[in-house]
Amino acid sequence: MNALGKHLLLELKDCDEEVLNDLSFLKSAMLTAATEAGAIVLGESFHQFNPHGVSGAVIIAESHLFIHTWPEYGYAAVDIFTCGDSVQPGRAAEILIGKLGAKNHSILEIQRGILDLR
Amino acid sequence: MNALGKHLLLELKDCDEEVLNDLSFLKSAMLTAATEAGAIVLGESFHQFNPHGVSGAVIIAESHLFIHTWPEYGYAAVDIFTCGDSVQPGRAAEILIGKLGAKNHSILEIQRGILDLR
Repeated sequence: MNALGKHLLLELKDCDEEVLNDLSFLKSAMLTAATEAGAIVLGESFHQFNPHGVSGAVIIAESHLFIHTWPEYGYAAVDIFTCGDSVQPGRAAEILIGKLGAKNHSILEIQRGILDLR
Repeated sequence: MNALGKHLLLELKDCDEEVLNDLSFLKSAMLTAATEAGAIVLGESFHQFNPHGVSGAVIIAESHLFIHTWPEYGYAAVDIFTCGDSVQPGRAAEILIGKLGAKNHSILEIQRGILDLR
């Protein structure tokens, strides 16, 4: 019984606070993570919040990446949802942990779409 | 100790297969779910796949909603990630379960950003 998708939920703590408020940097980091993981990027949407924080989505042919940042807490929530075997979500996670300078992190992996296929 | 965000992961099974391949319907359903839940919509990005399937993100001021559909399996993965107390993610879930005609579903709730705030 296989799952259709693999979903990584990253909790990134003690990150570089300046980076967490830099929309251009985060967009570039997310797009790099997606392509380095072998994904095909279809679209993106990023938003800067006032007074601080960024949210952004990257839609890939193999599902999506998402980030929400709280610079005031040095924290970012990142999701990497992929389907198929052509993408390496772990590689995307590694890149983002590095680029955000997360001194602490955890990764929860959840299988999505576990179907009883006949 | 409070969490910054609440993340609902919905597994929607035995859905209406036609609906799962209808980008306009899904976009409208996701936007309705977001606004009915009390969220402020900031942006969206939806993509139709060939031969079937739709992926879509709605960025809200309070985080995001995401959907990926596999019409061939009658399955959709939906994420509802919210922060703050002004949004009712359970209401968005209820609306989407109804609109997609999911005969079976499960909801996993995960707290995001549990910080040791001093």
